[in-house]
Amino acid sequence: MTELRTLKVALLGCGNVGAQVARILIEDADTLAARTGARLQLSGIAVRNVNAKRDVDLPQELFTTDADTLVKDADLVIELMGGIEPARTLIISALRNGACVVTGNKALLAQDGPTLYEEADKAGVQLSYEAAVAGAIPILRPIRDSLAGDRITRVLGIVNGTTNFILDQMDSTGAQFADALAEAQRLGYAEADPTADVEGHDAAAKAAILASLSFHTRFALENVHCEGITSVSAADIAAAKDAGFVIKLLAIAEKLTDADGAEGVSVRVHPTLLPREHPLAAVRGAFNAVFVEAENAGELMFYGQGAGGTPTASAVLGDLVSAARRLVLGGPGRTETTTGHVPALPIDAATTSYYIGLDVADQPGVLARIAQLFAEHGVSIEIMRQTIHRDSESNVESAELRIVTHRASEAALAATVEAVKGLDVINSVTSVLRVEGV
Amino acid sequence: MTELRTLKVALLGCGNVGAQVARILIEDADTLAARTGARLQLSGIAVRNVNAKRDVDLPQELFTTDADTLVKDADLVIELMGGIEPARTLIISALRNGACVVTGNKALLAQDGPTLYEEADKAGVQLSYEAAVAGAIPILRPIRDSLAGDRITRVLGIVNGTTNFILDQMDSTGAQFADALAEAQRLGYAEADPTADVEGHDAAAKAAILASLSFHTRFALENVHCEGITSVSAADIAAAKDAGFVIKLLAIAEKLTDADGAEGVSVRVHPTLLPREHPLAAVRGAFNAVFVEAENAGELMFYGQGAGGTPTASAVLGDLVSAARRLVLGGPGRTETTTGHVPALPIDAATTSYYIGLDVADQPGVLARIAQLFAEHGVSIEIMRQTIHRDSESNVESAELRIVTHRASEAALAATVEAVKGLDVINSVTSVLRVEGV
Repeated sequence: MTELRTLKVALLGCGNVGAQVARILIEDADTLAARTGARLQLSGIAVRNVNAKRDVDLPQELFTTDADTLVKDADLVIELMGGIEPARTLIISALRNGACVVTGNKALLAQDGPTLYEEADKAGVQLSYEAAVAGAIPILRPIRDSLAGDRITRVLGIVNGTTNFILDQMDSTGAQFADALAEAQRLGYAEADPTADVEGHDAAAKAAILASLSFHTRFALENVHCEGITSVSAADIAAAKDAGFVIKLLAIAEKLTDADGAEGVSVRVHPTLLPREHPLAAVRGAFNAVFVEAENAGELMFYGQGAGGTPTASAVLGDLVSAARRLVLGGPGRTETTTGHVPALPIDAATTSYYIGLDVADQPGVLARIAQLFAEHGVSIEIMRQTIHRDSESNVESAELRIVTHRASEAALAATVEAVKGLDVINSVTSVLRVEGV
Repeated sequence: MTELRTLKVALLGCGNVGAQVARILIEDADTLAARTGARLQLSGIAVRNVNAKRDVDLPQELFTTDADTLVKDADLVIELMGGIEPARTLIISALRNGACVVTGNKALLAQDGPTLYEEADKAGVQLSYEAAVAGAIPILRPIRDSLAGDRITRVLGIVNGTTNFILDQMDSTGAQFADALAEAQRLGYAEADPTADVEGHDAAAKAAILASLSFHTRFALENVHCEGITSVSAADIAAAKDAGFVIKLLAIAEKLTDADGAEGVSVRVHPTLLPREHPLAAVRGAFNAVFVEAENAGELMFYGQGAGGTPTASAVLGDLVSAARRLVLGGPGRTETTTGHVPALPIDAATTSYYIGLDVADQPGVLARIAQLFAEHGVSIEIMRQTIHRDSESNVESAELRIVTHRASEAALAATVEAVKGLDVINSVTSVLRVEGV
């Protein structure tokens, strides 16, 4: 082992994930050297406050506030600071210096990925970011390399553990959103300000990254239609359950072909009904999973822990060892191709099935009028089910109508729902949710 | 695209998978060139009979019986003939000529993998074999690359679709093994001679490959303890179901540490009970899945189609594109490391939980005597449940005892079962099955 070359590793950021990465680099140095063919020497950890308390005991002399100098002297740079700046400037500086960069910064990649990929290409070095999507789950490398000879047609991902935990709580206990969120916060699955998670922003950044790799085309955050889970009610969950569905927040990227044969990709995040027997339906708690459909491979699913310091550190280390092996062997790595050139489609161009819950007047002919209205909008109904409730005290009857449609365009479905709202026999539209996996 | 270099691809074998690989190479030539940076030109297909009927229409001039000449002139060789010879000699010849080789030949890899890996290392070229385990599922690359910075502790795989289909049929319909096998044969999921599948030989070859990559040590078929599913009865399945379990044929590779701290790996294939809520329990029909536990990443699962021409071709093409990218960029690829050096352990050294079904005399003190005997052998009982049956005609009572043990060594469990058989209150031992996932 004495002849092994040493590669200097600069770590930027020492939070939840960074502290575990540093620990593993130190504790498993011999194993990593054996697997890499080079010693990976942690040359320093750039932080804002060198005296802050950390999750892990690390040698004090590693810490520095001078990220610039640390980066200039590194063969490999791990960026785990998060946020846009100074992460962006430091990554670009590292790439221009010829260092390979490993990052988990999904917000930066979704916002400014193309700039970073170009800088990496120009410098002929690797930029890898497995940790940015679905934590420990190896998903980006399989999409990029294992499926390189196939054509991905659709990706459905549960890529945000916080919202999956909340929806799973609501599903299993009947809790309302606010109570399930409070429970998630109590258990550390949701942050004090849960906006980025519950509004779907975190999942949207991951959707942009997944779509870009899957369709060999660069998609940005602005191409992603995003709806969160704050309006999902306990009643929605109960009705879905009753109909054999579970509600999940899905990141979806799918290739669509219009009537003229032109191709495009719809990238979106929204609460979605899935049949209970769908493999994604069994993904419980804070776990993540990505379901991939490819022309030749068929259906694939990748499942595991989507967050947490140690699991995410595993993904960072996997990227680091790959980049280091590359440096040992010489030559750059082609990390992704962007020769697909398919356009991003607006949400209106997506096709999906809808679940629609209606509170309707209990009178003859209501079903027929609603069915007629769907037909006029070109939306085909798959299931229509009416339940009559009688209030035992007032003896007043109310009727609940649940409709699952066949796949239709978002535009046609939205127009149908608008038209339904205008019918005098409709008391209220209680829920409108998209359905996948049927 | 005019300046692209051309890489010659020789295909050996044109069965189920080979024909699809040839089709994709021809149909998707432009896409593959864009993703690879070189044109992948199918230079010929070596077969035994050039006039045989194929699944796919392919240009007749591609076929040849002269595999040797085809291999000598190729940059990339795809071996899908199966069997040991002439596949082995052709692969070695290709590697020595400096060609990268992609193969799906699990039998050859399990029997003679080390020789092939050494030839590839010596020649500085890639030997890749994603298609050899779990068909379309990207599992070898994630283990080799994505988890390169982690330590895998255990792998549980449903890696044989035929046996999973049969066990799933038995579970869902209550059928006996023979009837479920006949149904699998009728539907094309099992071959006329199903020995390699139902006796676990196919799964054992895959277990050896998975263990080798997971533990960075070369394990051969002779290191794998193998039991098939022919002795699994409808009664076993029903009893397991009743207790909340499902029976799966698992390929297992796990690291064990003995009392002195010495490490070893147990590699085995056998019918196994899994709790119904375990992610692998939901793998139905002929699907495959591999569940991986790693120190940092935690639990991961990879799910998809484990067989079939087109899905398996996707895995072959993924390997081919990666190897071709490598050739375009220059430099060899480090495909796996074997620096782990952990010994293969015999089945006796494995620890597992057991499910034991007993037909016992219905008399006082039986439970106590059996429990005492388990305790004497150092095996701790987790669940013990007795059911009394009374035959309504004869009015004779019989008692059925079901025991689930805590984890103990295979040796202690086997000795316990032997001792139980010797008790005079035991009419018969109705089933002995291993349990995982509890």
